[in-house]
Amino acid sequence: MKIPAIAISRLSICARNLAVLDEKGVEVISSGRLADMCGGNPAQIRKDLAYFGGFGVRGLGYYVKELLFEIRKILGADREWRLGLVGVGNLGSALLRHAPLADRGCTFVAAFDKTPERIGIRIGGIKVEPPEAINHVIEEKGIEIGVIAVKPEGAQEVADTLVRAGIGAILNFAPTEIRCPAHVSIENVDFSLKLDMLCYRLTSGAST
Amino acid sequence: MKIPAIAISRLSICARNLAVLDEKGVEVISSGRLADMCGGNPAQIRKDLAYFGGFGVRGLGYYVKELLFEIRKILGADREWRLGLVGVGNLGSALLRHAPLADRGCTFVAAFDKTPERIGIRIGGIKVEPPEAINHVIEEKGIEIGVIAVKPEGAQEVADTLVRAGIGAILNFAPTEIRCPAHVSIENVDFSLKLDMLCYRLTSGAST
Repeated sequence: MKIPAIAISRLSICARNLAVLDEKGVEVISSGRLADMCGGNPAQIRKDLAYFGGFGVRGLGYYVKELLFEIRKILGADREWRLGLVGVGNLGSALLRHAPLADRGCTFVAAFDKTPERIGIRIGGIKVEPPEAINHVIEEKGIEIGVIAVKPEGAQEVADTLVRAGIGAILNFAPTEIRCPAHVSIENVDFSLKLDMLCYRLTSGAST
Repeated sequence: MKIPAIAISRLSICARNLAVLDEKGVEVISSGRLADMCGGNPAQIRKDLAYFGGFGVRGLGYYVKELLFEIRKILGADREWRLGLVGVGNLGSALLRHAPLADRGCTFVAAFDKTPERIGIRIGGIKVEPPEAINHVIEEKGIEIGVIAVKPEGAQEVADTLVRAGIGAILNFAPTEIRCPAHVSIENVDFSLKLDMLCYRLTSGAST
């Protein structure tokens, strides 16, 4: 069964909101209020969850702790993930120091850069290594997710290297389209595109 | 006429690819090859462009420089935009130093942070000011786009302040849902959600 990406994205937002509720000591939440927090409607959330089993109690809603636990399991957010970063410029360095990633169980265990002056330095406790080390280090450290924060013109080559090294998932911050074999998942964090959307709307007065 | 967001997003990607072609000295591109570079098909791109007028030459394709010029005008990428940043932690500081934003015409002209130790320091040439200055500085400097890079629990309050100060567009890096009046555009750069998508696919073996 193919589960739509939007369902996973809504569950991810649900988990985030449930974690806040749990921290506040809230034990039960109505399906209406949960949907409202997550920007959907109760039927949608119910349908998203139904792909994975039966959750919630009719007339009551959901037990916060239980639902959070189940969604985290679905998303694979109940375990640790080892990340490798390529490109330790301003953005890459910020990512290495970005605490929320580690809080979510995504930990950088290696960083690579081709600039000679950057090799050997430590950022956020991670020693920067040359690109030639990628293949070896990814296998040695069991890295599953590659994060690309190089300039757009170098991104495809980096992606190819990561794929050859056995990486199954790539988070790409370079503002360019990367092509990978079908078995590799890619997500793009493309904020120049998002800025274009905003500038377009400000220019045209459109509400798209 | 309501133009779909996906059309604007494709045009943004087109512009990016056309800029690379233009830099390489390519003068003409076939609609097939352009569509291929932008991850669409020729009919889609033609339709996206048709919202704004007639472009291209039948049987030939598009003149690179001309099409780039026109798309930039459509997107509002042919002028300068003044950005204000709230939150100069690791990520915010990296954004202030992120050259591609300025290259695209989006220039940070102000930065704000509530942490006393950060107020008064300069990052990427911008002096950090306290949140109380937001209202005044946004008006004085003619800032049109607000960028939020604070912790999720503070994001809504910052958005409210920006909206009260007259901001019409917000780029939100905080992993939380922000609510704004309908006249304000919001785009979220949510990489924790993207990571959840990747972890889900690695966990489930799904190709969604």
